[in-house]
Amino acid sequence: MGDISQLSKEDLKTKLEHLQETYTSYQAKNLSLDMSRGKPCSEQVDLSKPMLNLVTSEDELKTPNGMDVGNYGGIDGIQEAKVLFSKIFEVEPKQVIIGGNSSLTLMHDSIARAMLFGVNGEKPWSQQEKIKFICPTPGYDRHFSLCEWFGIEMITVNLIEGGPDMDEVEKLVQSDESIKGIWCVPKYSNPTGQVYSDEVVDRLAQMETKATDFRIFWDNAYAIHHFSDHPNQLKNIDQACHEAGHGNRVLQFASTSKVTFPGAGLSAIASSPENIESIKSQISFQTIGPDKINQLRHVRFFEKEGSLEEHMKKHADIIRPKFEKVFERLELHLHGKEIATWLKPEGGYFISFNTLEGCAKKVVSLAKEAGVILTGAGATYPYGNDPFDQNIRIAPTYPSLEELHVAIDVLCICVEIVSIEKLLA
Amino acid sequence: MGDISQLSKEDLKTKLEHLQETYTSYQAKNLSLDMSRGKPCSEQVDLSKPMLNLVTSEDELKTPNGMDVGNYGGIDGIQEAKVLFSKIFEVEPKQVIIGGNSSLTLMHDSIARAMLFGVNGEKPWSQQEKIKFICPTPGYDRHFSLCEWFGIEMITVNLIEGGPDMDEVEKLVQSDESIKGIWCVPKYSNPTGQVYSDEVVDRLAQMETKATDFRIFWDNAYAIHHFSDHPNQLKNIDQACHEAGHGNRVLQFASTSKVTFPGAGLSAIASSPENIESIKSQISFQTIGPDKINQLRHVRFFEKEGSLEEHMKKHADIIRPKFEKVFERLELHLHGKEIATWLKPEGGYFISFNTLEGCAKKVVSLAKEAGVILTGAGATYPYGNDPFDQNIRIAPTYPSLEELHVAIDVLCICVEIVSIEKLLA
Repeated sequence: MGDISQLSKEDLKTKLEHLQETYTSYQAKNLSLDMSRGKPCSEQVDLSKPMLNLVTSEDELKTPNGMDVGNYGGIDGIQEAKVLFSKIFEVEPKQVIIGGNSSLTLMHDSIARAMLFGVNGEKPWSQQEKIKFICPTPGYDRHFSLCEWFGIEMITVNLIEGGPDMDEVEKLVQSDESIKGIWCVPKYSNPTGQVYSDEVVDRLAQMETKATDFRIFWDNAYAIHHFSDHPNQLKNIDQACHEAGHGNRVLQFASTSKVTFPGAGLSAIASSPENIESIKSQISFQTIGPDKINQLRHVRFFEKEGSLEEHMKKHADIIRPKFEKVFERLELHLHGKEIATWLKPEGGYFISFNTLEGCAKKVVSLAKEAGVILTGAGATYPYGNDPFDQNIRIAPTYPSLEELHVAIDVLCICVEIVSIEKLLA
Repeated sequence: MGDISQLSKEDLKTKLEHLQETYTSYQAKNLSLDMSRGKPCSEQVDLSKPMLNLVTSEDELKTPNGMDVGNYGGIDGIQEAKVLFSKIFEVEPKQVIIGGNSSLTLMHDSIARAMLFGVNGEKPWSQQEKIKFICPTPGYDRHFSLCEWFGIEMITVNLIEGGPDMDEVEKLVQSDESIKGIWCVPKYSNPTGQVYSDEVVDRLAQMETKATDFRIFWDNAYAIHHFSDHPNQLKNIDQACHEAGHGNRVLQFASTSKVTFPGAGLSAIASSPENIESIKSQISFQTIGPDKINQLRHVRFFEKEGSLEEHMKKHADIIRPKFEKVFERLELHLHGKEIATWLKPEGGYFISFNTLEGCAKKVVSLAKEAGVILTGAGATYPYGNDPFDQNIRIAPTYPSLEELHVAIDVLCICVEIVSIEKLLA
């Protein structure tokens, strides 16, 4: 079947009736399918369970370097965990601090410190008249809610092929001193799956910013989350910043939440040696140190697995078919109908799906009434405000293949119904 | 031997020479003994190692209530962990939030939130002209450095028998709107070991404060850390505040850092249901939730141990002899000489030791030169400033009995030397 907009009103009405019948039959099934969050499925979580046997009561609680992990101390984590993350961040281990189980906490706390104590010797952000962040969109809802929470004004910039629209970004940061940061999910971006190009990385590193306390919040959450064996390469932002003479500009974040245990993994922050020293002295008021036993568990686990990469292939084997299932159902139901577009990421956790303008909220709501939960429409935009009401984030990792099959079929029916209603209106 | 101050100058000089010879002989031993921090010894840490076998790859990662601990979620912790801490705090489980591995983080973050977002609907503390905290002294150095870090002015109030001098506290909080908090270590206070009396608890709960955004920071770090089977009872501050019509006044903190693993335990905060709801909504921007696998480990462990109390008896059996060793050596060397006093706590981690006025810094420094590290003199006072330069905190838990024997002998010699030098000056 082809372009729906070419159909006569009569044909559209007939089609709508059929769709509504099918929709009603799905409603009768009392489905309860959740595709709202980027949540690993239980098979993925199970991959890391052997880790739980790697630090036991038989062990001496010591790292290979001889550090006691049972007692206090080690504010920045054990050396071996820093080495592990230094590979993800492509920096020196001394540029890494290991945190607790959540990289969101490291991002939140970085902003909180900037608010209270300032950045780069400048006035605390909370004492400056206005603080603004650039938010490439569509983007990650938790970044946006952090900004909202801290009273940071969000300026949207389009995420285009290869990263944010850099002409726009450069114009903004060069002219507005109140712009203090930009959120970036540079690899398999949430939700579009895009990977920042070398040119974008270079321009982010090199651009002149009016604010001397400007920071790039580089949330590399999916750094190693590829579907294929020939992953996309992301240019090293730390090195690019260093070479551009802006060595302190970037704060990188990552975690093993989608590598080991979503609630019990490790998080880390990386930056210039100078920034890291400063953060260490600041967090010494906040903690005696992170959970080193869990770090040792992780270090031993990846040793046993061979490498992080080997472990991530197991994840890819579980979730690749889920993404393919989504593409298969979308193709089957929506191909050529000119009522939706979607991107095919090569890694990460999401599929970015666009309806006709003004349809996303209705689609999400209709799907919900049939028991299929999607991320709220608008969530991928600051203040929950998608100006065209068309972006929907699909998170296919958590449901089973069978559930996904049904969930996407329901989604497609909802998209068709809402689109036809729009055309008929 | 009796009161040293009664000796003639000649006798003092002879005695000093002998002491200096002994001191030199200790120096020759190249000792390296650390009594600076309240750090559990390895035998204590080992008590909890069986916990590491209680969540393994064979397990379903589920709580008794059916919650999945392997995945995201549960911002306030698993129900069973809340029940565990509710017993320590003597509150309802719904009044508890489980944190990461460090109660210091919960205290730090509580202040950070007050700074940025305010308390009780009042202006954020960072936007008020001046913020002050009452600091009963001697007290815990990390509380004081937190205040210094956040720019909070510290007002010292004497810690007397049964708690802070409440006449003074009441006078202060009734008259000064900028006083927003008081630090309390109500049981086996750090470092004096005192337990707050019922009267002090009631007066803290009932007192009128000029600031409507006043909070008691109730760091109940040693709530269950008794030496005897007939522990001191601490009146329930949460209930007392509730009954006094100040239900939101108190924030309680505790952790298992000195119960299970100092670096890998659980921390928790307790307060009124209203405060807890507010904190939960605030931290939802900061984390998806704490490490629930570690919580499950802890819950299973205490089930197996019988109870928290049973487990703590094992700790007491290890550290009680260490405290007794310190008292024995102090008695032997210093009894009746009228150059030092010390308290005999019935729980906790410290012994508060007072020299003659103006001697503490010299004693700590002299001991250090003989390889015995004590907490820095002055650390038990805000800004590191002990007005009488006489308080020394002894932390006897980490060294072995043999090491303690030597360390306290060295301490006593240093005290005698510095005291005689003072008398001769």
